[in-house]
Amino acid sequence: MEIINSPAQIQQYALRVKRQGKKVGLVPTMGYLHKGHLTLIKEAKTKCDVVIASIFVNPIQFGQGEDYEEYPRDLTRDADLAKGAGVDVIFAPRVSEMYPKGYQTFIQIESLTERLCGASRPGHFRGVATVVAKLFNIAQPDFAFFGQKDAQQVIIIERMVEDLNMPLKIVRVPIVREDDGLAMSSRNVYLNAEERRQALVLFDSLKAAKSLVAQGERDAARVKEKLIEIISKAPLAEIDYVEIVDGKTVQPVKKLSGEVLIALAVRFGKTRLIDNIILEV
Amino acid sequence: MEIINSPAQIQQYALRVKRQGKKVGLVPTMGYLHKGHLTLIKEAKTKCDVVIASIFVNPIQFGQGEDYEEYPRDLTRDADLAKGAGVDVIFAPRVSEMYPKGYQTFIQIESLTERLCGASRPGHFRGVATVVAKLFNIAQPDFAFFGQKDAQQVIIIERMVEDLNMPLKIVRVPIVREDDGLAMSSRNVYLNAEERRQALVLFDSLKAAKSLVAQGERDAARVKEKLIEIISKAPLAEIDYVEIVDGKTVQPVKKLSGEVLIALAVRFGKTRLIDNIILEV
Repeated sequence: MEIINSPAQIQQYALRVKRQGKKVGLVPTMGYLHKGHLTLIKEAKTKCDVVIASIFVNPIQFGQGEDYEEYPRDLTRDADLAKGAGVDVIFAPRVSEMYPKGYQTFIQIESLTERLCGASRPGHFRGVATVVAKLFNIAQPDFAFFGQKDAQQVIIIERMVEDLNMPLKIVRVPIVREDDGLAMSSRNVYLNAEERRQALVLFDSLKAAKSLVAQGERDAARVKEKLIEIISKAPLAEIDYVEIVDGKTVQPVKKLSGEVLIALAVRFGKTRLIDNIILEV
Repeated sequence: MEIINSPAQIQQYALRVKRQGKKVGLVPTMGYLHKGHLTLIKEAKTKCDVVIASIFVNPIQFGQGEDYEEYPRDLTRDADLAKGAGVDVIFAPRVSEMYPKGYQTFIQIESLTERLCGASRPGHFRGVATVVAKLFNIAQPDFAFFGQKDAQQVIIIERMVEDLNMPLKIVRVPIVREDDGLAMSSRNVYLNAEERRQALVLFDSLKAAKSLVAQGERDAARVKEKLIEIISKAPLAEIDYVEIVDGKTVQPVKKLSGEVLIALAVRFGKTRLIDNIILEV
């Protein structure tokens, strides 16, 4: 497995293997790989001849005061894990290669970015869409793999691909959880033991919401009440948002019907965690 | 020569010919072709195996009160001209195919769009960059051809290609002029006889500026004075802007040195014309 830093070099490589008729898969990550990422890679292996994993902590998707500096990084460990999972090439560019002096082009997706993490983190999805478009142009994937954990992100990326006529398919991969239910995240390492224990309320609340809906509840306000009730059992939990939105438009719903996304962001100390569930009602 | 409306169909076609190792050239136009466009097509023929010309009056690059509705359209005439010039396929999508319901993705280029036409026509270059990115993803060109007549546009497109790592080359093609010096434009048909006659001051002013600089003048204010003096000889001319900017950054210069862009936009009646000259000082 090779590690390549240069965007031009990866692009040459990708264009070459595509000319040979091979299918290229891209797994975009910010590194510090966990089982969620490895599941994306395994999925890519089943669909593609060549799998490129990008590892890049993208500065333009972090706001002022967010954790860009502290975000965990360990390329050696990541390279071992990626190799073990069957990655063919790691693309690990430097910030100065992705955003050289004079850089000034950004991709904005409108209504889908208004709520949830888009509201809590202004500019976040502009940074995500921009870097992902760059990665697509660089790695020329036929398929790109995104985790359902970042539910709004994958909806936005799918929209961008369709709107800009990008010639590739997005593959959504289900959330991978720890044995006790906490969604895998590189940010989980920030949690101390007590925060980690209390963070289980997130998945507990989603399971409770799911079972409420299974029992016939269709009123979004009542489902939301239940989510908040369970999260509030954790004294350290500070809710950023708890929302019930349409799974396609990311606009709030009053009555649950069709594809519904229940999404939440909650802080435990300095750590902001997100989790979600999609229900077909 | 085929005329194809469907983005998906052109994309399939382009990906297929590229897999055969052929070079694809794209000439993006808004139609109502003139000799300037035909020069772009001829240039494309020399560099590429397959030439796609797009014909699309892009609504999102027109502002409120601009000439989107009146913009001249004649696909039959365009098809004859394009065929004669050697175009292989015309891509002529419907607005509803380029911007279907729910469309919401836009590309913004920052400082390069602040001045000149970007200042006069807010949102114009956002619309241009967005449609051009879509056309690039649809037609998959190795080379795309743009006229130097829209000087700021080509600078912006080059920046977008570089910033977003798009795998293609932009080719700039010099301005083509009528025998009397008026820059070719689809909008020239709007001019009545008197406006058409007076519009010659545009190229006259640029030639005078060039000769002033050739004589050693390096002060931008004095060159600008000369441009305005000559344009003002036409009683119908109403100046939108006359600017002397750096040819790379599109920021105003005080002293002429390096690559300098002298650009102007002037109204004659309802018709807004642009013209420019690039000087290597």
